[in-house]
Amino acid sequence: MKKFINDPQHLTRELLEGFAIAHKDLVTLRSEKIVCRARPKADDKVALVTLGGAGHEPALSGFVGEGMLDYSVVGDIFAAPGPPKVIEALRLAKRPAGILFVVLNHAGDVLSANLAVEMANQENIRHQMILTHEDIAPGANAPAEDRRGLVGCIPLYKIAGAAAEAGKSLDEIHALASRFNNNMATLAVAMKTATHPATGQAIFDLADDEMEIGMGQHGEAGTGPCKLLSADRTAELMLGRLLEAVKASQGDRVLLILNGSGATTLMELYIVLRACQRFLEAKGITLAASHCGEWLTVQEMAGFQMCVATMDDELLRYWHAPCQTPALTVK
Amino acid sequence: MKKFINDPQHLTRELLEGFAIAHKDLVTLRSEKIVCRARPKADDKVALVTLGGAGHEPALSGFVGEGMLDYSVVGDIFAAPGPPKVIEALRLAKRPAGILFVVLNHAGDVLSANLAVEMANQENIRHQMILTHEDIAPGANAPAEDRRGLVGCIPLYKIAGAAAEAGKSLDEIHALASRFNNNMATLAVAMKTATHPATGQAIFDLADDEMEIGMGQHGEAGTGPCKLLSADRTAELMLGRLLEAVKASQGDRVLLILNGSGATTLMELYIVLRACQRFLEAKGITLAASHCGEWLTVQEMAGFQMCVATMDDELLRYWHAPCQTPALTVK
Repeated sequence: MKKFINDPQHLTRELLEGFAIAHKDLVTLRSEKIVCRARPKADDKVALVTLGGAGHEPALSGFVGEGMLDYSVVGDIFAAPGPPKVIEALRLAKRPAGILFVVLNHAGDVLSANLAVEMANQENIRHQMILTHEDIAPGANAPAEDRRGLVGCIPLYKIAGAAAEAGKSLDEIHALASRFNNNMATLAVAMKTATHPATGQAIFDLADDEMEIGMGQHGEAGTGPCKLLSADRTAELMLGRLLEAVKASQGDRVLLILNGSGATTLMELYIVLRACQRFLEAKGITLAASHCGEWLTVQEMAGFQMCVATMDDELLRYWHAPCQTPALTVK
Repeated sequence: MKKFINDPQHLTRELLEGFAIAHKDLVTLRSEKIVCRARPKADDKVALVTLGGAGHEPALSGFVGEGMLDYSVVGDIFAAPGPPKVIEALRLAKRPAGILFVVLNHAGDVLSANLAVEMANQENIRHQMILTHEDIAPGANAPAEDRRGLVGCIPLYKIAGAAAEAGKSLDEIHALASRFNNNMATLAVAMKTATHPATGQAIFDLADDEMEIGMGQHGEAGTGPCKLLSADRTAELMLGRLLEAVKASQGDRVLLILNGSGATTLMELYIVLRACQRFLEAKGITLAASHCGEWLTVQEMAGFQMCVATMDDELLRYWHAPCQTPALTVK
C-alpha cells in the first residue's frame, strides 16, 4: 500500500511517539496509549477525558491541552481502546472537581466506556458522561443509538474545555455540553475511498461518477451512492438537511464546521463554505463562527463532514475562548 | 473529476471568497486576488509581500496576518499572478520602513516579480527581494537558478515576519531572512499523483510500487522513480542528504518541517518524524523545533516535503514568537 509506514502492527505506537515528539511542550504519553497535558492546570478543575481509535489524526488526541481535553485514550487503527486503558485514564484524571467523560457513539467505544464507568462508580471516581451522536444520516429523528458521533465531538471539547478552564462545576459543564450536544447535527459525504493502513484494504467502493452522502467515518453505509454534484449543490443539499435537523430559522446564529476527511483540499472546503454562507444569508441565518480544515480524518478518504450547531452568547463565548493544543490554538 | 468544485474557470475567485469568509477577522481581499491583513499594525513596520499560484492551500495566503505576511498576491491554479497585480500589491504595501518581497524560485513567479520590481524602482517603492531556492533535488551545489522554492518560504515568512513585528529595519530583516535562506534545504517525495482541478488531468504518473524523491510541487521531475521504501528508510535517506546540504553536525540545532502534500496523513508524518528524531539523536544533532502538517499542498498528492534548517538563538526566538494567521497561530 502507498503509505509512509513501517510494520503495520506498530502503527499506533509509532505515530504516538512521533506525536509526542512534535508536541512535547503540550502533551505527554502515559503507558503508551494515554495522551495527557504536559502542563496540567495547578488548580482543581473539571477534567475532560475522551477515547477513540487511531487513524483519524489529528483527532482525538490533537485536542489535548489547555482549554480542551485533559486525557485522550487511544485505540488501535479505527478500533476502540479496551476498558483497562480507559479506567486507567479515569483513575489518572480522578479529582474532587470530577470528570466530564466524552464518548462518541460507536459500538466499541461505548462498550469500553460503559465497562470503565462501572468500575469508576465502584471506585468513587466522580464523573458524568456525555454521548455524542449527532450524525443525521439515518434521519434527524432516528433513535440516538442509531446515530454516530462524528466531528461534533471537537467543538464540544472546545466549549466544555473552556468552561472547565474557567472553573465551572461538573454540573454546569455537563449542562452546557448537553445543550451543545442537542444543538448540533453532522452529515458526511464521501467521494473516494481510503486504504486501511493496517490491512491495506480499501474501506469502501464508489464508481468514478458517484459520491455518497451520510457515509460514516469508517466506510459505514450512508444513504446510498448518488451522482457527483457541484460544490454549490452539495453544500445546499447537506446544509438544508442540517438546518432542518437543528431547527435553525431566520435570526438564528450558527457555527459551521467543514471537516476534510483527508484528500479533500482546503481549496474545496473554502468553495463549499462560500456556498454555505450564501445559503444561510438567503435564509436570514447568521454564520456566527466557522472552521474549515482537517480535524477528524479517515486516512486519505476524499469527502468531508459538515457540522452545524445553533449558538447562543454563552456557547459562542466558550467557542472563542483561548486554548492551546497540538491541532488548535486560539489566542 | 472527483472534487467539490463548481466551474473550474472560477476556482481561484471562489476559493478566495470562502477563505475571506472563514478568516474575516484576520484577512481581507483587495481587488479579487490580493490578500491583506484585516488589522494592519498601526505603527510603521517593514511589510512582507509574497506571490504565488493557488491550489496549494493553505499556502501562501494562509500565512497573512500578525507576525507573518502583510500581502499575498494570488495567481490562478499553479500559475503565477501577472505583474500588474504584483505591482498593485507593492503600491499598497509602500511605506517608509520598506518592503521585504519574498519570491519562490519558479519561472513564472520570478518573471512577474522582476517586472514588478522594475516598476517599483521607478516609483521609489522602497523594497528588498529574497528569492527562496532551497530544493536540493538537483544537488545541493547546483546553481541557485536550478533549485526551486518549496515549503521553506513559510518558516522564512515566520522568522522575517516576527522580526518586522518587533520593529527591525529592512536591512536587518533582509540579513536575517538571507541567513535563514542560506541555512535551509528541502527535499520532496511523491507517491500518488494529484488531479489538476482546472484541467482534470493527473499531474504525473508513478507505478503502484514506486515513489519519487525530489519531485517538485507541480509534478516537475525529481531524481527518477524508485521502489517504495518504509517510513524509517525514507526518513533516513532524505534527512541524510538534507543534513549534508545544510552542513549540520554534532552539537548543531535544527528546525525540521514535514509538510504533507495533500493525501499523506498526519499519522504518516508523525511516524516519519519519530524516525528523523532517532536519526538526529544518533548524530548528536538537536531537534530544536519541528512542525508536521499541511502548509503547502499539491491538491490531493500523496507525499511530503522535508525541510531542515540549522538554527541559532536569534532564529529560534523569531520562530517561536507569537503570530496569528489563518494557518498558523503561535501564542
